[in-house]
Amino acid sequence: MSALRPQAEGEAAPGPPRHSGELSSTQASTRLLAYSDALLSIIATVMILPVAHTKIHPDQKLGESIQQLLLMKIAVYLMTFLIVTVAWAAHIRLFQVIELIDDVLALLNLACMMLITFLPYTFSLMASFPGVPFGIFMFSTCAIVIGLIQAVIVAYGFYHPYLLNHQIQMSENQAFYKHHILQIILRGPVLCFLAAVFSFFFIPMSYVLLGLVIFLPHITRLIIWCKNKTGGPEEEEERHRLEAFTFYLNEPLSKERVEAFSDGVYAIVATLLILDICEDNVPDSKEVKDRFHDRLIEALSEYGPNFLAYFASFVTTGLLWFVHHSLFLYITKTTRFMGLLNTFSLAFIGGLPLGYQLTSEFAEKSHNEIEAIQVSCVITFFASIFQFAIWITALFHERETLHPLARYGGKEHAFMFAKLALYPCVSLGAFFLTCLLSKFSTAIFHIMQIVVPFAFLALRILVRISLAIMKSVLSLSRRKSVVLDEEETCLSPAETLS
Amino acid sequence: MSALRPQAEGEAAPGPPRHSGELSSTQASTRLLAYSDALLSIIATVMILPVAHTKIHPDQKLGESIQQLLLMKIAVYLMTFLIVTVAWAAHIRLFQVIELIDDVLALLNLACMMLITFLPYTFSLMASFPGVPFGIFMFSTCAIVIGLIQAVIVAYGFYHPYLLNHQIQMSENQAFYKHHILQIILRGPVLCFLAAVFSFFFIPMSYVLLGLVIFLPHITRLIIWCKNKTGGPEEEEERHRLEAFTFYLNEPLSKERVEAFSDGVYAIVATLLILDICEDNVPDSKEVKDRFHDRLIEALSEYGPNFLAYFASFVTTGLLWFVHHSLFLYITKTTRFMGLLNTFSLAFIGGLPLGYQLTSEFAEKSHNEIEAIQVSCVITFFASIFQFAIWITALFHERETLHPLARYGGKEHAFMFAKLALYPCVSLGAFFLTCLLSKFSTAIFHIMQIVVPFAFLALRILVRISLAIMKSVLSLSRRKSVVLDEEETCLSPAETLS
Repeated sequence: MSALRPQAEGEAAPGPPRHSGELSSTQASTRLLAYSDALLSIIATVMILPVAHTKIHPDQKLGESIQQLLLMKIAVYLMTFLIVTVAWAAHIRLFQVIELIDDVLALLNLACMMLITFLPYTFSLMASFPGVPFGIFMFSTCAIVIGLIQAVIVAYGFYHPYLLNHQIQMSENQAFYKHHILQIILRGPVLCFLAAVFSFFFIPMSYVLLGLVIFLPHITRLIIWCKNKTGGPEEEEERHRLEAFTFYLNEPLSKERVEAFSDGVYAIVATLLILDICEDNVPDSKEVKDRFHDRLIEALSEYGPNFLAYFASFVTTGLLWFVHHSLFLYITKTTRFMGLLNTFSLAFIGGLPLGYQLTSEFAEKSHNEIEAIQVSCVITFFASIFQFAIWITALFHERETLHPLARYGGKEHAFMFAKLALYPCVSLGAFFLTCLLSKFSTAIFHIMQIVVPFAFLALRILVRISLAIMKSVLSLSRRKSVVLDEEETCLSPAETLS
Repeated sequence: MSALRPQAEGEAAPGPPRHSGELSSTQASTRLLAYSDALLSIIATVMILPVAHTKIHPDQKLGESIQQLLLMKIAVYLMTFLIVTVAWAAHIRLFQVIELIDDVLALLNLACMMLITFLPYTFSLMASFPGVPFGIFMFSTCAIVIGLIQAVIVAYGFYHPYLLNHQIQMSENQAFYKHHILQIILRGPVLCFLAAVFSFFFIPMSYVLLGLVIFLPHITRLIIWCKNKTGGPEEEEERHRLEAFTFYLNEPLSKERVEAFSDGVYAIVATLLILDICEDNVPDSKEVKDRFHDRLIEALSEYGPNFLAYFASFVTTGLLWFVHHSLFLYITKTTRFMGLLNTFSLAFIGGLPLGYQLTSEFAEKSHNEIEAIQVSCVITFFASIFQFAIWITALFHERETLHPLARYGGKEHAFMFAKLALYPCVSLGAFFLTCLLSKFSTAIFHIMQIVVPFAFLALRILVRISLAIMKSVLSLSRRKSVVLDEEETCLSPAETLS
């Protein structure tokens, strides 16, 4: 099973197409998938813009405004993010079955992408007019058409078997496979169809059905997991069935695509604020003449907090990307649960521009300074703690999912631990400090921003020093209890740190 | 030389880090480069947003407005695009020398990226206040700091030689290499420093110097090319010197990175309009109640042209991506000139949202309908004709740059030709048709939009049919002139099409 992906890559090497006879028009799907990942990651994070652009008057209390305005938009953002990741997971599954593409498949995939990019808009409609069936109807129509296009892709793939995954190509049960994949792909659209029907006479039911579409993959996964835990005798038969479909029911997500999708999200989030800055923060030449007597620098200093917010947001996103990058260097296999945690982490990453937009608008101007900083800290904390959770999950099955160097007791284990723990600790610390010392909250926040990048640069040295100290302390205490097994001491650096 | 890249890839395979001793912290640079490409491509296309968001009153003549408002913003957009591609080319060169990274290099690279993302803003300042030195000063400062960070990266790389390209690692002239690379990297910052100095007493000179920074790589390339053409006897010695630095002076751009950068531009351009639609085109619930008596669909039909513009823009971008994708499947090596043509093509791709924004705002409402459509056609034409130019350039050195199947006379040659010629022909045709039949311009434009995707789907069949017809016509005419060499007939399908 784990040999499937590398073998497929070896076969479908990027670059020139295959030679043999009729197949000259088939191509490796690598670039198509990269482009799809880029599109999907942009769409997933787009809906944070209406949230970030919500103008709140400095005198207004943040608490009330959030309740009135933001909550609905944040809900739309999260819904969009989740549905796009579901569509993305389905896309991965689809192109794990179909490994080579030709022009027809490329065009069909583009059509599919176009409809997916339209989904956020239907969510906005639903959120603005929760009582009108039109939003649900439009969303369902899009989802059904996407499902049908994917079904056409599958049918086309099975009609031209040389496009398929090698294992399915060789299998005798091709028809069975096809049936099963179609069933998985069309499950969502059928639910959407029901939602569209219900939307005309009982709207709450259709919302329940739409929620089901988003969480269905995880619910089925949970049910299977529970069954495996409780039903002992059934397990054998279950496993046998699983083996046949091993790479869509129980598949680890493709690590490359998780990375590509995450990269897209991090990149668009890092640059979201520069979009605003380039449009809104270029002073008007007339205003500069009248108000500032042609002194451009004075006029620009008005925007100071905005620039600071931009750099802070870029640095935080960049460093969280760096942590993610380091983590995935050592992860050898991505399970579904790790994918889910990654999605949660990315959803909070998408919220970062909102946090920093708040700090740029409120800081030192209004009553909401502390709230803005605390919101930023909370978002940073959750984004980083979910990264940490990925690492913990990986440690549970470290033989399958982690590179030997990063396993418990490995050379890089302690260092990795420190890298992942830095942001949760710092953001939590800053949060509680602002609660205690509310007068200095802006100063605390800025110090945190400046210190963290240097902490990352010096992390390796810091970890070595602390490990050395821990070692000597431990060896001293052990010498007292006359246990001198030095090997164990170096094998458990994580304990000493946690 | 061409063996350099694959060897490097084999050595620096993505995934787990290397094992040997001290090197456990080094990593393959693939993901860092992918993330950098994503950031750079977003930044390159960001500045089209202020252009696209320029509100023009429907009664105002488009011609005048363009002169007053748009031209400056378009200039800023093009400047940004060019400077970012220059920075990107420098980035490629840098990471062709340094092939493995560690945490320090990753963090330095992030700092470098952050400064690059700030460059568009300095251009906006320059464009808004052309007579004030502050914009130039800020740009120069950023460029100098970027240059210094890159110099630090090079110095760090040469201090830890295991990070370097294998060929340089083995070379005896390491110091010479280092000197040469630093010289190339610091050339831009030195010019910027001069520009910053001149900005205080003679501003036009600093603009000339900044222009030089953008075009310097191409100017030096042109000079070398001219020298090679004119100076016959010097050629030998020149080539010998070139061989030593073969992969930075005469290097073909890394094909993967050209693809990644292009993918980023295409993806962000395809989704730029949905950003606006999600923010601006959700009707206000109060307005729906008062003006449309709770009929949401009527309210939405007001936005019809916007949705149409979005889909048209997405389809055009998607299909141009598809052509680009097909083209680069058959290109085996990307020369600098092809990279330059690709940059021009991408710069026009970035302009597509502007064109479609115009059609959505003007169509059937104002005097500027035809102009808006013609602008879209012109942008599409240039975006696609530069793609075509890449193909022509590749054909000139087809033995080095093209896959055998796509070479002149190859199986896929005619098909590739048709794919690349479709958009230039269609957009040019639509342009002249709107001139002739100005009353039906909107209808012509919409028909073009609907026909093109289907033309792509049926292209293979169409090409086969026309080839068969041409073949039979040719064989008939040849039979008359008693030349029956059938093989030559099938070897020149391009002639029959052009």
